[in-house]
Amino acid sequence: MTQITDVTAYMTELGQRARTASRALAAADTHAKNAALNAIVDDLENSRKALITENAKDLQAGKEKGLDEALLDRLELNDARIDGMIEGLRQIAALPDPIGEIFDMNYRPSGIQVGRMRVPLGVVGIIYESRPNVTADAAALCLKSGNATVLRGGSEAFHSNQAIASSIRRGLEQAGLPSDAVQVVETTDRAAVGDMINMPKYIDVIIPRGGKGLIERISQGASVPVIKHLDGICHVYIDDEADPKKAFDVALNAKTQRYGTCNTLETLLVNDTVAETILPALAEAYLDKGVELRGCAATCKILGDQCIAATDEDWDTEYLGPVLSIRIVDDLDAAIDHINTHSSSHTESIITENITKSRRFLREVDSSSVMVNASTRFADGFEYGLGAEIGISTDKFHARGPVGLEGLTSVKFIVLGDGHIRQ
Amino acid sequence: MTQITDVTAYMTELGQRARTASRALAAADTHAKNAALNAIVDDLENSRKALITENAKDLQAGKEKGLDEALLDRLELNDARIDGMIEGLRQIAALPDPIGEIFDMNYRPSGIQVGRMRVPLGVVGIIYESRPNVTADAAALCLKSGNATVLRGGSEAFHSNQAIASSIRRGLEQAGLPSDAVQVVETTDRAAVGDMINMPKYIDVIIPRGGKGLIERISQGASVPVIKHLDGICHVYIDDEADPKKAFDVALNAKTQRYGTCNTLETLLVNDTVAETILPALAEAYLDKGVELRGCAATCKILGDQCIAATDEDWDTEYLGPVLSIRIVDDLDAAIDHINTHSSSHTESIITENITKSRRFLREVDSSSVMVNASTRFADGFEYGLGAEIGISTDKFHARGPVGLEGLTSVKFIVLGDGHIRQ
Repeated sequence: MTQITDVTAYMTELGQRARTASRALAAADTHAKNAALNAIVDDLENSRKALITENAKDLQAGKEKGLDEALLDRLELNDARIDGMIEGLRQIAALPDPIGEIFDMNYRPSGIQVGRMRVPLGVVGIIYESRPNVTADAAALCLKSGNATVLRGGSEAFHSNQAIASSIRRGLEQAGLPSDAVQVVETTDRAAVGDMINMPKYIDVIIPRGGKGLIERISQGASVPVIKHLDGICHVYIDDEADPKKAFDVALNAKTQRYGTCNTLETLLVNDTVAETILPALAEAYLDKGVELRGCAATCKILGDQCIAATDEDWDTEYLGPVLSIRIVDDLDAAIDHINTHSSSHTESIITENITKSRRFLREVDSSSVMVNASTRFADGFEYGLGAEIGISTDKFHARGPVGLEGLTSVKFIVLGDGHIRQ
Repeated sequence: MTQITDVTAYMTELGQRARTASRALAAADTHAKNAALNAIVDDLENSRKALITENAKDLQAGKEKGLDEALLDRLELNDARIDGMIEGLRQIAALPDPIGEIFDMNYRPSGIQVGRMRVPLGVVGIIYESRPNVTADAAALCLKSGNATVLRGGSEAFHSNQAIASSIRRGLEQAGLPSDAVQVVETTDRAAVGDMINMPKYIDVIIPRGGKGLIERISQGASVPVIKHLDGICHVYIDDEADPKKAFDVALNAKTQRYGTCNTLETLLVNDTVAETILPALAEAYLDKGVELRGCAATCKILGDQCIAATDEDWDTEYLGPVLSIRIVDDLDAAIDHINTHSSSHTESIITENITKSRRFLREVDSSSVMVNASTRFADGFEYGLGAEIGISTDKFHARGPVGLEGLTSVKFIVLGDGHIRQ
């Protein structure tokens, strides 16, 4: 590890280099960007031994530090995980290049032709916790979308990240692109994060990837715009015109297919006319899977001791585990109102055969993904066909929902004339 | 003026009311929104006398306060200006409704159908200086795009703004929309601004309209995202393959058609092979119009005492007046490099007949509007066909360039299934 004494000076220089590299990258053609991605793939392939050796240092340090098993597991790089990382890069190389796309070109009454061109954001800063594969994945998405990147990974993965960064640097050089296009911060000093999120001159957007604590800290301290993803308090509403089988399948899948993901169901809303028919079988299925049920008074009346009483706090809680809150509501209006009040604006689904209620739900629910008769677990960049995902935004500004290559771009106006002047 | 003692409590309540109203507005159909706009038009028409009476109070107070003539002129509401305000509202009513548009609907391999729907941002806060017509204009754009609005105008226009707000409120009520959909802050206490820009729970975006000082203060203090527009340091580059007449016409128009606008030319770049042919006649024309010329050493050598020596500071200055800096550059690379270093990323134009250089300029110049053979003065929402403009963004995040109705919207994902669950 290089000894860096003046962190701010170091980060400023790194930011300046990123800004300079971003210009070359914005002008780079698709061939050069893909050549770099393929050269990185080859270099990672040839560096397997070095990657595993460097990763072993992190694992050793992690054990000495007493990291828990789950963290150590996320930290580990083995052959299968290197394969996965390489496969991810190949997929990104195969995606269409979003940059330079021209659209909406129209002649105006003045005679000028006006349209729009998709361009990179410039420099993207990524701050993430310990999974080292994010280094390759995030760098590749930014590279493909013509952005320079500053990556700041978790200190536990320091040696692994530096080893991956070396492969990336060599790949960029081999393709004739500036190696500063992807820079991995070479200090574990936390002051580097504070500097990074406050360099609007050099960094155009920050994407934090990690737990809620990390994301909140970064959002609050940043003067650079942040694409952020906080809670996922997702809802399924079973309407009185729901198909009972679809209701059962979707409500069960949305909660139990995986517990720890942000698109997992946390509160089930059920129309009161169908609650007595729908809930008992569903409750059995949840309990079979070990899910604790917390219901409103009407729910507890139906489910008896299968369910404990929910408190007000439950409606605002992301359990990220085998717990589900259930509330019986009078009608669609009450369901939409509950969702728009308690949801984290991530993903919500209605189960109904009625098209009019579907249309209202789609329009009026203010969340980044709104679904009809589908499991909330589908809210994901790969499932949506974005090809890859750098994060999910629960904001409405700039990008909303799963963020793929397009979320890393901006759009400028282009104007063509023939000596036109304004009268 | 109501006496408001606890500004923060007042602003919080106002924010809560805006958030509630925003839900009704997001669900409102095009007919209801247009009916409200037309009812506001009728109410303003019937309130001419009251508007002029209230405006007279502001003008009187302004004179007593010693406001300068230009400010008093901007403050004045007369019949012609009320006509203009009404015509603006009619035009906004005639624009297509952007909300609810569904696009990119595609089936995915899993069987779900995924697409996107355009939705309002939610609550838009507008902070502006003394022109009272902004009250009607901004409220109408937000209303049409389904957003609730909190407006905070300059204290000099307090009575005028309140009078316009009354018409808006009555118009909303008549169309059956919540009158809280447009709220004008009823205190001139500056603390209200500090509260407003730090209520992310209630306000989704802030748009400041006014001088650079106002915008910088707001950007620095805001935790709510800001759509901002700082300098307009715009460039025209005359290439060695420029048509001399187009070069002359565009360079003259871009500087002299209006001096005080943000899309006015501030630095002219000229390729050195054509500088001696192009510059003398152009300099004559500028001097005829009273424009002071500040040139690099090579420019001064050609223009002699028609030109004074530019300092380094000139390349970073927005004159907003009859001053122009001129620099001779070696080639397109040097021109792009100068622009990407010194421009405020607003608007730049190349004059050339060469398509290859045009393509490079369009792609590599990192500004919100990039032009070929056209005057920078065209960078404007009306000229671009956006129908109306709530501001110009020099940021890359969310909206870039002139911001019309689309800049006041976001896009969510919608998913349709038939009981689909994730495997």
